[in-house]
Amino acid sequence: MLRSTRQSARPGARQGNTPVQPAPLRRPGGVGQGAAGRASAGARGSVTHALCRDDDNRRLFAYERDVKAAFDRIVPTLKQVSALQHEPQFEQQAQRIAREQLGFELPQDILADAWVEQLDMRRLFAWCVFSTYRRFCDDYYRNDPLASRDDEGFDAFLQACGFHTLDISPCADGRLAHLVRYVLRLPQQSVRRKSYAGALFDIEDSIQKWTEVELARFREGRPNTADAATRYLKVVTYHYSSVDPQHQGCAAHGSDTAKAAAAGLERLYAFREAIENSFCCGASIDLLLIGLDTDTDAIRVHVPDAQGAIDLASAVDALALFDATARGGAADATRAIAAALRECTPDVQPGMAQLVERLIENNLSQIAYVRTNHGQHYADIGHAERFIGAGVGFEEIQLRNLMYFAYLNTVEEATADLDVGIKIFSGLNVAHGLPVPVIVRFDHHGQVPGSRARAEQHCARVAAALQARFDDLTQRGLLHVLQVTRDCDRAGSIELLACSVNAQTQAGGH
Amino acid sequence: MLRSTRQSARPGARQGNTPVQPAPLRRPGGVGQGAAGRASAGARGSVTHALCRDDDNRRLFAYERDVKAAFDRIVPTLKQVSALQHEPQFEQQAQRIAREQLGFELPQDILADAWVEQLDMRRLFAWCVFSTYRRFCDDYYRNDPLASRDDEGFDAFLQACGFHTLDISPCADGRLAHLVRYVLRLPQQSVRRKSYAGALFDIEDSIQKWTEVELARFREGRPNTADAATRYLKVVTYHYSSVDPQHQGCAAHGSDTAKAAAAGLERLYAFREAIENSFCCGASIDLLLIGLDTDTDAIRVHVPDAQGAIDLASAVDALALFDATARGGAADATRAIAAALRECTPDVQPGMAQLVERLIENNLSQIAYVRTNHGQHYADIGHAERFIGAGVGFEEIQLRNLMYFAYLNTVEEATADLDVGIKIFSGLNVAHGLPVPVIVRFDHHGQVPGSRARAEQHCARVAAALQARFDDLTQRGLLHVLQVTRDCDRAGSIELLACSVNAQTQAGGH
Repeated sequence: MLRSTRQSARPGARQGNTPVQPAPLRRPGGVGQGAAGRASAGARGSVTHALCRDDDNRRLFAYERDVKAAFDRIVPTLKQVSALQHEPQFEQQAQRIAREQLGFELPQDILADAWVEQLDMRRLFAWCVFSTYRRFCDDYYRNDPLASRDDEGFDAFLQACGFHTLDISPCADGRLAHLVRYVLRLPQQSVRRKSYAGALFDIEDSIQKWTEVELARFREGRPNTADAATRYLKVVTYHYSSVDPQHQGCAAHGSDTAKAAAAGLERLYAFREAIENSFCCGASIDLLLIGLDTDTDAIRVHVPDAQGAIDLASAVDALALFDATARGGAADATRAIAAALRECTPDVQPGMAQLVERLIENNLSQIAYVRTNHGQHYADIGHAERFIGAGVGFEEIQLRNLMYFAYLNTVEEATADLDVGIKIFSGLNVAHGLPVPVIVRFDHHGQVPGSRARAEQHCARVAAALQARFDDLTQRGLLHVLQVTRDCDRAGSIELLACSVNAQTQAGGH
Repeated sequence: MLRSTRQSARPGARQGNTPVQPAPLRRPGGVGQGAAGRASAGARGSVTHALCRDDDNRRLFAYERDVKAAFDRIVPTLKQVSALQHEPQFEQQAQRIAREQLGFELPQDILADAWVEQLDMRRLFAWCVFSTYRRFCDDYYRNDPLASRDDEGFDAFLQACGFHTLDISPCADGRLAHLVRYVLRLPQQSVRRKSYAGALFDIEDSIQKWTEVELARFREGRPNTADAATRYLKVVTYHYSSVDPQHQGCAAHGSDTAKAAAAGLERLYAFREAIENSFCCGASIDLLLIGLDTDTDAIRVHVPDAQGAIDLASAVDALALFDATARGGAADATRAIAAALRECTPDVQPGMAQLVERLIENNLSQIAYVRTNHGQHYADIGHAERFIGAGVGFEEIQLRNLMYFAYLNTVEEATADLDVGIKIFSGLNVAHGLPVPVIVRFDHHGQVPGSRARAEQHCARVAAALQARFDDLTQRGLLHVLQVTRDCDRAGSIELLACSVNAQTQAGGH
């Protein structure tokens, strides 16, 4: 993991008084400039390709590095603070260090109690993770750091390919959280993402989404009118590990790649059958199956034929195309992609071909990204998430291995996913005496009366159920829960509702 | 409670061998004949009204009496069986009594174990309740005992009034379970019923239903095309007790009638606002608020004005209209209803007036029904449910005080409702040493692949969560759970999935 010490002047650090204004997570000027990214990349030796968008790569890398660095500064900073706890003027010293290193102050009450026994590092750690998450969200919703000018035409492009909705279900594994914005280089606001363990999406939920989309087309002509000959495209993304296929593949399928792919395809077919059987008048959808190597971020696309059938044994492999076209020009590479696609599926539909060609081309940039910044593959091929996210929402999470995602409405329905998450964090955090930070989030629609109050109740109910299920960890201070919501009908950031660190201490300190 | 010994010949009783065919719950010839109903009614003195449908009343009463009698025969029958348990040839004698009294045989393994200690009456009682429920469902889905020829034109009538959907949310209290078919005399298959504690329906769920309905109108012209000037009508039914208003009103609102009505109206307005804010192009819905006196089954209707506003202080009172018109002719009564409506709400919309007039007129039959069969009010003004139903479905439950309804997806979200249900049954059953019978049910759509398997998992998960929450009762054999599902896409009855009484003993014995 690359870390940046970032002790240079930042707005938050300059102020020095509480309440501290949130410092931007990203280095000023980092967006679009990529100077820092280029420098880091230079250290490894930049890998590129005629179709690679180097500017995008630098910008995306600077964002990823800065966000992760903000989380990764917490432990060294708290170590420094811990070493000072019995010194004179400890509280002032600690706050100065926190402001400089983290960009925010620590909760005064925790520091003030240190003299009695010792500093409660567990609460402090959880508080810092939650505060950093909050700053990360504020940055995301206020500054739109992942926006790109290229994104504007995407909806029109998608419709030209014959699709009015792109609905992707990746595995909930944190190593796929960057699928949309990084691996496929798609505008995240134009894609519906709903993650599930093993990519086994909920068919009833998808039918409901399909119903909403089709009604909007009929009533509001959004995104296009119902008579336009476009379809709803459902994509499943399974994953595997090229470096350690037996252990670092998809846990939900026992690291068995063939099983993961087959289960994803089965679920796709079942969804199409459900739509065709439940609605008359020729209702149907289009399907696409994508495999992701979580070590290199290379995709392989199982391209459907003219009848919509998908062959598990045949796929277009972006990594092979990258290597085969690495030394040629852009036009040669584009032709090679098109040829590989037709070889894989001779009767592919033109619109589907157009979309898949774009996905493959986009993925070449990500392959170069990983090789430039991480070498032949990521160093963290296993889990290295910083916190668990439980609930619905989290569209700001577009980074790999940042959050373990437990999509859920209730703990009762999601015990399997949560148990896996807690097990992962038992290794990552609890083994080192640090608590598991869990962010419980249910967003709401501010224009629906009572919606915010219901989201608040929902958060409280799930937080209580989590703490009951993992009672032992909770009692030992090794599980902390932050409850947040966000109004989907407004542009603002998240709202903090409650925090187990301290009922009186609001994470973020402002 | 009226009971019938019903030892006359029934198909089930004639056979005498296991597996026993389910005996019909209803007396042969009882449907449409009403001879038995008339006889019983005669005992109390028939009460009628010029607008009362006496034939319907007899038919509905025969059905209610037979179904409840089937459940109410369980305790006296098991008492008889219990008294014999140390006699020679106990098992044969017990089976003979069970066949004669209940129409089915008892599980052989429970009888066979009686000699070791004593007969396990708790398991036996739960098994009998579940078997009777199964026979009740089989009868409902196979024989359509509540069908009426008048129902055929109802959808057209509703559309003529300006509504394409009638969606009613009553309180989940068992004393309102007969609202649709009995109190309002509507065809239950033409009405969406979704019950909630305190009638406080889920707005997000209702938005989803509205979306489905509107899409069906656009895509399939069902029930009418989207350009027809009809609207979705949402009705809330709160309730109160005229006999003991301080104690037998709505528990969710502390038996405070004004509070129950105000909360229902607030939820209705919130739903309309949610639709208007979430969808453009003039999307809106119509609203109606109805109060029900659970002692007399008389309704009062808060009629919306031309702007859709509802006045809590003004309502059309069916009981007052019944008494005022009891001695006159049909035409006078019809005129009186229309006049009362206009007096209540002078600018009522013509379509809404037409619908409310029909509801009031229908309710006059139910007022006569209660007076004829029960006197001035029901004897069981409090809770007297026979079992708890938890989950989704249960459209066969159209009888008062038969089932305590806990509409839920998870125990986690429904602890308040379930705790109330268990408390009620602690008084009804546990205090007498009898277990709480809970039927967990999630229906499925057979045409959606995997839907049945998911319903099965859902039932198992909820059953486990129930048993965990009420662990003490479960351990003492005082909580038994039957898991069932039904394929909504086929005409068949329910399917039994699992039963806590005995993994090997299938309730229903066939």
